Amino acid sequence: MRGRATRVLDASAIAAIVSATGVDRMYELAVERLTAVLTEHAAGTVDLRERDGFVLESPHRGLLEWMPAVRHGSSVSLKAVGYNPHNPAKYALPTILSSISLFDAATGHLRTVMDGTFATALRTGSASAIATRLLASPDARVLGLVGCGAQAVTQLHALARTIDVREVLVSDIDPEAERSFARRARDAGRLVRVASLEEVEERADVLCTATSVGVGEGPVIDGGRLKPGIHINCVGSDMPGKYELPLSTLRGSVVCPDHPAQAMREGECRQLAAEEIGPSLSDLLLAPERAKPLRSVPTVYDSTGLALQDLAMAELFSELSQTLGVGDDVTIESSAGDPRDPYAFLETAA
Amino acid sequence: MRGRATRVLDASAIAAIVSATGVDRMYELAVERLTAVLTEHAAGTVDLRERDGFVLESPHRGLLEWMPAVRHGSSVSLKAVGYNPHNPAKYALPTILSSISLFDAATGHLRTVMDGTFATALRTGSASAIATRLLASPDARVLGLVGCGAQAVTQLHALARTIDVREVLVSDIDPEAERSFARRARDAGRLVRVASLEEVEERADVLCTATSVGVGEGPVIDGGRLKPGIHINCVGSDMPGKYELPLSTLRGSVVCPDHPAQAMREGECRQLAAEEIGPSLSDLLLAPERAKPLRSVPTVYDSTGLALQDLAMAELFSELSQTLGVGDDVTIESSAGDPRDPYAFLETAA
Repeated sequence: MRGRATRVLDASAIAAIVSATGVDRMYELAVERLTAVLTEHAAGTVDLRERDGFVLESPHRGLLEWMPAVRHGSSVSLKAVGYNPHNPAKYALPTILSSISLFDAATGHLRTVMDGTFATALRTGSASAIATRLLASPDARVLGLVGCGAQAVTQLHALARTIDVREVLVSDIDPEAERSFARRARDAGRLVRVASLEEVEERADVLCTATSVGVGEGPVIDGGRLKPGIHINCVGSDMPGKYELPLSTLRGSVVCPDHPAQAMREGECRQLAAEEIGPSLSDLLLAPERAKPLRSVPTVYDSTGLALQDLAMAELFSELSQTLGVGDDVTIESSAGDPRDPYAFLETAA
Repeated sequence: MRGRATRVLDASAIAAIVSATGVDRMYELAVERLTAVLTEHAAGTVDLRERDGFVLESPHRGLLEWMPAVRHGSSVSLKAVGYNPHNPAKYALPTILSSISLFDAATGHLRTVMDGTFATALRTGSASAIATRLLASPDARVLGLVGCGAQAVTQLHALARTIDVREVLVSDIDPEAERSFARRARDAGRLVRVASLEEVEERADVLCTATSVGVGEGPVIDGGRLKPGIHINCVGSDMPGKYELPLSTLRGSVVCPDHPAQAMREGECRQLAAEEIGPSLSDLLLAPERAKPLRSVPTVYDSTGLALQDLAMAELFSELSQTLGVGDDVTIESSAGDPRDPYAFLETAA
């Protein structure tokens, strides 16, 4: 028996894939793959577990979570995500560190280990784009962004491929994040203007909240000035007890979660009773006629992030890495010699 | 920000660690670490989730499982295990493929990715040794092994460090596995004799069942001929619906699981009601006076395998790899440039 290779896709390999493919094309592919995997879920060919994890209190308060999903007959993905808000200041590391392992469903072999950062940003933005296409008015022109971090950039880029964005109004409690946003938005930066939170709320046709608001410090908008046809993508859910939207806004909107059970544990839906929650994104993709009448009323996409979305992204990057010949192969799993001899690998290695 | 290294410990790195440390010393270290982590569980400094996974029906029937554990303030481990009995015949791969990811609890950084095969064998054998020290008669001399695969070898080696083994009687439905066992047992092979299942049951002071019996095809022993002070380590639990011991043997024994809830889902304990289950291995380690009177009555250690044990092994191998300078470092997680810029890594990589 010979060991099988595991392809390692580090940040530079991901960069090579994205550069060779083009950022625009990556968003297109992501929307295609996510649409497919979310509709396949109903057919039972893919499955997932809700996110689970450990709350870490020591040495700092943080989270370490895992997100498993399966495409039967093909692959199993397991994303690990660390959420540690102290990282930038204390360790010169990003708040979120993430990796995805992709296994062969036929053999259990670890096929790919990849950085999960960009894949997560891409799928979160693309999922919002799918929700926005279904739930926002086709006449939407003004995009509001509350929170100007990395997620706001990918929300903007994904949504600009979905609606005809003419103006982007941004607000953040950190003036430096506001100031640097247009630059980070690349080409779309010409549409960006820093605005007061009031103006963002009043003028946005589509709003995205993607903040690091602390537990007990939300909501991040007032909600009283929103347009009657507003669509909100609420993507900031990450820590237990964190909310971005006021209850009144949720109660006055049709709230569509990515995954009802997970959103009731982690998302804005925690503020609602089960009967107050609307159709899921998968429901709407399977019955788009249910979405159409919602385009003229307030809607919220409660985005908690699904393991299924990570599966689709891991498959996409893994396929692109094969096509493009990108990444390094290592042999991690022991498969040396006699499977009945637990020490066979000692001799093979020596 | 600079990306942090992830140490990759493939089978040859594990071999280098085991060779440099010595197999005997590895068992000693494993018993020490497992004893520590199992007793720490009661203090709340370590925690685990029960094993969960996907049952795969396509293209073949198999399992892909994950096992998370945490040492608060230190590390989080996530073992992935594939169990695919068709692997040897169809793919020239072992039935079990396994890898362990070890994360820094302070930052969420993926510190180590390692082959999990030998670590799993080592911890399973060592956990049986701990149970045997607590529950078997100190006069035990005859070890019986039902099932002569890789697990039987590590059970033998771990137990030979715990009890004064004078004779090893082995039985397997596959004559080739029986014949080759003495060779695979290395030095302990001189004690090994192939025997009928009847003789193994009648003469064993300590018995280990580690079989690949099919679902619905168990139990693997009759149970009617066992000695009155028998201690059985039952380690074959892996597939739903698989049993190794007859109900009468379980009912006539004090059954000590590694983890009561998991054993009631996956182990021999599925055959029992909650009130029929005895103290766990952790309970016995914390109160060894409860174990002493059990040494003269029939006892069963129901071994399902704990994520906590994998955490202890991942920590051990990770530490040894640092001390010995073994393994290759790769940088998997993106941490390039501006954390507010989702494309910063594109420029850093280019």
